[in-house]
Amino acid sequence: MTRYDDLLKSIKKKEADVSIIGIGYIGLPTALFYAMRGMKVRGIDTNQSLIDGLKKGVIPIHEEGLSDIAKEHLSKIQLANSYDNVGETDVFVLCLPSPIDESGKPVIRYLEHAIRDIAKVSKKGCLILVESTVPVGTTELLAQLFAKESGFKPDTDFWFAHCPERVLPGKVVEEMDTNHRLAGGTSEASTELAVVFLSQIFKTNLVHPTTASVSEAAKLAENAFRDTNIAYANELAKLCTTLAIDVSEVIKLANLHPRVDILSPGLGVGGYCFPKDGWILVESARKKGGSAELIPAARHVNDSMPWHVAKRIREIVLDCTAKATVGLLGLAYKENVSDTRNSPTVELLQALTSTDVDVIVYDPLVDEGFGAKQADSMDELLKISDIVVLCVGHNQIIKDLETSDLAEKVFVDPRNLLPKMRSKVKKYVGLSI
Amino acid sequence: MTRYDDLLKSIKKKEADVSIIGIGYIGLPTALFYAMRGMKVRGIDTNQSLIDGLKKGVIPIHEEGLSDIAKEHLSKIQLANSYDNVGETDVFVLCLPSPIDESGKPVIRYLEHAIRDIAKVSKKGCLILVESTVPVGTTELLAQLFAKESGFKPDTDFWFAHCPERVLPGKVVEEMDTNHRLAGGTSEASTELAVVFLSQIFKTNLVHPTTASVSEAAKLAENAFRDTNIAYANELAKLCTTLAIDVSEVIKLANLHPRVDILSPGLGVGGYCFPKDGWILVESARKKGGSAELIPAARHVNDSMPWHVAKRIREIVLDCTAKATVGLLGLAYKENVSDTRNSPTVELLQALTSTDVDVIVYDPLVDEGFGAKQADSMDELLKISDIVVLCVGHNQIIKDLETSDLAEKVFVDPRNLLPKMRSKVKKYVGLSI
Repeated sequence: MTRYDDLLKSIKKKEADVSIIGIGYIGLPTALFYAMRGMKVRGIDTNQSLIDGLKKGVIPIHEEGLSDIAKEHLSKIQLANSYDNVGETDVFVLCLPSPIDESGKPVIRYLEHAIRDIAKVSKKGCLILVESTVPVGTTELLAQLFAKESGFKPDTDFWFAHCPERVLPGKVVEEMDTNHRLAGGTSEASTELAVVFLSQIFKTNLVHPTTASVSEAAKLAENAFRDTNIAYANELAKLCTTLAIDVSEVIKLANLHPRVDILSPGLGVGGYCFPKDGWILVESARKKGGSAELIPAARHVNDSMPWHVAKRIREIVLDCTAKATVGLLGLAYKENVSDTRNSPTVELLQALTSTDVDVIVYDPLVDEGFGAKQADSMDELLKISDIVVLCVGHNQIIKDLETSDLAEKVFVDPRNLLPKMRSKVKKYVGLSI
Repeated sequence: MTRYDDLLKSIKKKEADVSIIGIGYIGLPTALFYAMRGMKVRGIDTNQSLIDGLKKGVIPIHEEGLSDIAKEHLSKIQLANSYDNVGETDVFVLCLPSPIDESGKPVIRYLEHAIRDIAKVSKKGCLILVESTVPVGTTELLAQLFAKESGFKPDTDFWFAHCPERVLPGKVVEEMDTNHRLAGGTSEASTELAVVFLSQIFKTNLVHPTTASVSEAAKLAENAFRDTNIAYANELAKLCTTLAIDVSEVIKLANLHPRVDILSPGLGVGGYCFPKDGWILVESARKKGGSAELIPAARHVNDSMPWHVAKRIREIVLDCTAKATVGLLGLAYKENVSDTRNSPTVELLQALTSTDVDVIVYDPLVDEGFGAKQADSMDELLKISDIVVLCVGHNQIIKDLETSDLAEKVFVDPRNLLPKMRSKVKKYVGLSI
């Protein structure tokens, strides 16, 4: 029997030894899912305090349904902060960050480090899956790096594939089970093994074989598509501001068209993926002489939104007789999550603090102030603020606002979430009117 | 009884005298629809040969189902090339062109001329509807122009609204009956009259009251949205060309994502609306100090596509030993229509004729060569050409291609319509690979 047959057999019998490298926003739910589906799972992360917390049952991510799965399955996962015991691993699943640097260039050194570390300890006959979103061609380069560092032969001693996660933060648990998965191998045999492995955990008809480069491009293309569509809504909001018409009304009527589905505009685009994936796609092609103009324009538009809202707030402040206090409600990058990475509120905060304004912040899900004064409660924020800005529509914030007295406040609603407040506040400022 | 009551009553009783101004691509189907629904309709157009043709039953537009309606209802329409007999008109419907000039600025003089002409002859108590796609604020300006030229008082002697058409060329007859309609008045009474009028012809639940400026913006926003989404697909195709991967495969897999729906890339965007409406929206806001970057980028990307394809064709031509003949199949701006306005094929033709290449063209629905040699049949084109380019996928072209022998031809498929030709031709060149 060849190593390929051995590996295939152990995967099919659900006896494969699986190591998840990186157990953060994606790695942790992934590890729990695999454990839930009966896989033997190891979770590796260099963040010691994360490991310590998890060992005590602390789930650092706010995801619907995740705590319930964790209660039952976290104890089955063997947690460690080193690669000491991964030698017997049959399947490595890399869930590591792949950010961009300040100049917009992709950073893949976290993946490269992991590949080097794995190469030192792994046995022959393993499958390596990359879940991270990476520039087109990266999976192939990582496979070559692994071959070089380990001395193993591709397609004889190891197999390599890109299998991107595609879940929606806030609905990770639900979507991990229902979304289609791509299995993009660096060879046909790699694709086949990846398909079989994923089919043990997810429904077979949800797993799609392809090549590594197509898988990489598809993942980048879907996030850049969403980002571009949000940018369209945001650009429309800015144009409607100039034209003094209600962008929400324009979108509602335009969306009656059978082939039109304009998204909701807002304060900007945050989170880990959208602000970078368009740049990664463009950079993939730029390195080979290609160029783009729509995707970069989309990124600029979305990045401009906190500044567009800050400008509108400054116009209100100029109308105030005394020094105004601005209260920002919600610091997460979107509703009902605790994740603040690339949060537009933080950008808005920076745009406001450069002006002569007192800013106070509050988010029931976030325990950080990003340099601003933090209110202990929403009540406190509402009491102190002259101008209240609804940055994030967490369910809890919306519920509390509905019973609050804001008759003396200027209410800024940059996502047009509560137009009905128009009659309940001193002045309502929506996204465009 | 006031003039408003009189007008309302005659509309409700379907006794209103309706004049459609401009009976081209939209005006003619509109006039036929109104006649079919029992309205007394007059059709005015300054194009004498159009009127003469229609009087002989010649329908100059290729639209599915239009000839059938025309057979039964064209004779009911009173056709004329002047405003001589429009004095008794209760409802004017303006279906006139609103193009952009070479610098991208909207041209509304056709509407202004019509308003001046109508003002000279119309009676008090009329409703004027503008169907044309116009810059935000134009309907209000046209209403003011009408008041000035006629001496009539708005909301006492006349009412004015923007009611944009939203139909898909090629499916005009079907969509005229099923699409939602906007009734955007310059006053509440105008909106009300427009709603009642449209509800006589279209299903009541499909007619939506709004303001003129929101209606204008919604119409522009829906076309700019579509244009931006096509641009995204096209930019992705260009990036995939550089990356040497199949854009159709990338899109197919990306579209498995529950929130992603990337359109099909191609040779570019033509037709009367998309190439101009984004610019009109941007120009509406620019005049008031606003600016945009995404919509202009989308326009640039779509405009670049024929040049992208021309570049790929030139690369093939350079590989040819003798002088090559390139055959372009399809001159219309899209499949199964005869409309060649802003056709990407014509742009491709221009890009190719500046090089040392013989070009021959053929379109079963178009009787014009745009300066190139026209083949009498598809067979002739296939016989002469070394490189065959499938520019437009008319049903008839696709059907004929499937039974043609192209074994010795280079086949260029810039919309990736027939990937299965890969095995039947000397060389297949898709959009990206």
